[in-house]
Amino acid sequence: PEVTARDVDAGDFDALVIPGGYSPDKLRMNDDVVSFVRKMGDQGRLVAAICHAGSLLIEADLVEGRTVTSWPSIRTDLINAGAEWVDRQVAVDGNFVTSRKPDDVDAFSQAILERL
Amino acid sequence: PEVTARDVDAGDFDALVIPGGYSPDKLRMNDDVVSFVRKMGDQGRLVAAICHAGSLLIEADLVEGRTVTSWPSIRTDLINAGAEWVDRQVAVDGNFVTSRKPDDVDAFSQAILERL
Repeated sequence: PEVTARDVDAGDFDALVIPGGYSPDKLRMNDDVVSFVRKMGDQGRLVAAICHAGSLLIEADLVEGRTVTSWPSIRTDLINAGAEWVDRQVAVDGNFVTSRKPDDVDAFSQAILERL
Repeated sequence: PEVTARDVDAGDFDALVIPGGYSPDKLRMNDDVVSFVRKMGDQGRLVAAICHAGSLLIEADLVEGRTVTSWPSIRTDLINAGAEWVDRQVAVDGNFVTSRKPDDVDAFSQAILERL
């Protein structure tokens, strides 16, 4: 990494794109990362999350009342956190863009670009 | 495996011990596994889960109102599912035994053995 989460300010970024895999399971235990994600979301900046990245949105308390999608294994966790879960390539709700899996990357990227 | 979840009956087992790691993230997407876990829990049989295995308990809708522990990354998911989360080597609540991490394995195993 070129910089750590502790040393960046949400105000300096237009968008945050969170990849999936199992890294979100580790990042959600890092308070600096969770705080940064929460600030990006709360400040209305674009927050995009694919696959397992929804776990970080849960940890940052950003999904309640939001329409989102994700890798299916965390569907129940998103619903329990108050999200409306949909099975679509891309779900867009306000400043949040979410996708399900690697096959959705083209649609995910296009949705992000359209909003930048 | 010697047998698949589809071909076993909860009535034939005294206890279920679910290991952690990332396998629960995969197993929670298998309806046969989730159904088996739910039946074991609902029938009052011993269900023991360590580290990430709590994800399977969430998926099987078994944690509401239960005192449990887990690997810290799924703490929020367990709380959102209605569990009371505690930071202890072992949490025992009725027929449920949960532990946090590999370092807890001795205490976890002892708690299981005491209940068999």
